[in-house]
Amino acid sequence: MGTKVQAQVWLGAGEFALREFDLPSPGRGETVVEVDLATVCGSDVHTVRGRRPGPHPSVLGHEAVGRIAALGDGVVDHAGAPLSIGDRVVWSVTAVCGDCDRCRRGHSAKCRRLLKTGHEPLTGPWPLSGGYASHILLHPGLTLVRVPDVVPDASAAMSACALATVMACVEAAGELTDRRVVISGLGMLGLCACAVAAARGAIVEARDPDPQRRTLARRFGAARAVPPDAADPDPAADVLIELSGAPDAVTTAPRLVDIGGRVVLAGSVAPRGTVPVDPEHLVRSLITVVGVHNYEPRHLAEAVAFLAAPTGYDFAAVVAEPADLADLGDQMIETGGAVLRRAVRPGRRG
Amino acid sequence: MGTKVQAQVWLGAGEFALREFDLPSPGRGETVVEVDLATVCGSDVHTVRGRRPGPHPSVLGHEAVGRIAALGDGVVDHAGAPLSIGDRVVWSVTAVCGDCDRCRRGHSAKCRRLLKTGHEPLTGPWPLSGGYASHILLHPGLTLVRVPDVVPDASAAMSACALATVMACVEAAGELTDRRVVISGLGMLGLCACAVAAARGAIVEARDPDPQRRTLARRFGAARAVPPDAADPDPAADVLIELSGAPDAVTTAPRLVDIGGRVVLAGSVAPRGTVPVDPEHLVRSLITVVGVHNYEPRHLAEAVAFLAAPTGYDFAAVVAEPADLADLGDQMIETGGAVLRRAVRPGRRG
Repeated sequence: MGTKVQAQVWLGAGEFALREFDLPSPGRGETVVEVDLATVCGSDVHTVRGRRPGPHPSVLGHEAVGRIAALGDGVVDHAGAPLSIGDRVVWSVTAVCGDCDRCRRGHSAKCRRLLKTGHEPLTGPWPLSGGYASHILLHPGLTLVRVPDVVPDASAAMSACALATVMACVEAAGELTDRRVVISGLGMLGLCACAVAAARGAIVEARDPDPQRRTLARRFGAARAVPPDAADPDPAADVLIELSGAPDAVTTAPRLVDIGGRVVLAGSVAPRGTVPVDPEHLVRSLITVVGVHNYEPRHLAEAVAFLAAPTGYDFAAVVAEPADLADLGDQMIETGGAVLRRAVRPGRRG
Repeated sequence: MGTKVQAQVWLGAGEFALREFDLPSPGRGETVVEVDLATVCGSDVHTVRGRRPGPHPSVLGHEAVGRIAALGDGVVDHAGAPLSIGDRVVWSVTAVCGDCDRCRRGHSAKCRRLLKTGHEPLTGPWPLSGGYASHILLHPGLTLVRVPDVVPDASAAMSACALATVMACVEAAGELTDRRVVISGLGMLGLCACAVAAARGAIVEARDPDPQRRTLARRFGAARAVPPDAADPDPAADVLIELSGAPDAVTTAPRLVDIGGRVVLAGSVAPRGTVPVDPEHLVRSLITVVGVHNYEPRHLAEAVAFLAAPTGYDFAAVVAEPADLADLGDQMIETGGAVLRRAVRPGRRG
């Protein structure tokens, strides 16, 4: 291990600069991880393109995997087991206090003292918070989960945001065995949702305007895949998981579920205005609408366990060949077709 | 017991006619009840005033209490215990098959072979389905619950719709101990909701435009009662139960609840158009919206148990002095102020 950190510092707008920092010494509960691979979540693309605010200068990147290079006292994994130098891990997006009213009620994702991986300013108390760097300092409030060798880097990295969030959505959806489930929107979260729902015994219908993504969805567990303006599912769905954020898809969602159905909303994470909802329909049809944002520690552990199980779904296949860290700026573009994530490989072994 | 049934037959619009029928002989699973008292649910007022459709001629009335006058083989109460002539009972609004997919999934209120107390045409297979009569024939698919003598007629009658529906709402609201709960709309359901939530340990804020009803709410468990345009509760509520159906109240509801909050919608049972909802707010604040309509058999049993417990809430005090069955038509008017239900007393003992 060297004594320097190479990090891509986001300067605002589309500007990045590769800078060098001293390798931090981990304090109590802190961990230094050497990053092997980071995937580029769509929300970083939105940030860089000015569609959502973000503090800068900062090190972005909240989907990554790496090996522990140094660790302070008292560092344990999600299950409370001690960790060691060299362990391969992923870590949560949210660093939480575990002690405030929201944490105590099980909403640690909305902790009153919340910090977020890849979202903290370089000038603040957690400068090296992002995964677009050779090393990251893991805050004591993060959840760390060990990753078995069988899980490829690209799958492991995206589990820290996309797949763990899907695990929270699926939990909010309730029982899925033999249930008819519609997945609306086939980005990385949508594809993960198809796979997880299918693995739990659901009959999955995927909806997306992109024909290549519909083809992918069928490879990842969807029984059928149709455009968003296709006829309503018949019979109606038991569950709809909305991951596109498209106002039309949100408006249509309650109509596609049956009596007693559940609509899980997770895609609406940008200001797109209000949508019209008929409350009488929600009441008479006993429909539940659940908003999901980020996830709890257990969902990251479930995500890694899902990747380690022999499901046959190869998420790494929909992640682009990783670029060098120096070329991160070129990766800050929309994905399309069969590419659901771009990636960089900061590690030296690549 | 005589051999004739006196029933108020609704002829459409505001027209009723008092007619006489032969007392039916109960078949297997059926029960004949001599009605002591029936309360007039607001939905019957809506039906008679042409705001919602209803088959006619028919015998309306789905909130009533009475004593068993005759029973067929195999009649049991909600807990499976046999019933006897003379037992004082209330019965559910919904008569269900127990066997269709919806019943099997716990949504018997939406049974595929649903019949409803006080909603069936006189010319159909269940002519004497309503409580505005000296006797009612209880369909085998109804839930019957024994009513202890300590519960007054007026409270018992309204439990069959108002209070049982509130029990379904409260179940959908989840844990209430020490929770901040807003009750929106102070008709009979709203008042019941204040009382039940307070009894379960909630800190209740009631919202209604009527000052007399706000005064009532404070007598029935609300810690405070404010107009609907009052400042948002601070701190925000954990749960909001919307029983007014007012579009403005539905629109405002998600704003009044905290992170992880639940909005239970049950008042929107008439066509009032769509309301604007911000899906990003539901997502980022982890808000759940649950539609509730009617109730399951357990909720009627819970309602009667609540009335039989020493809570000190006297619901009979907000029911008007019962009129004669002959004067039912005069009772088909909106309630206001401190009168939350009108009532008729078809029984001979009155």
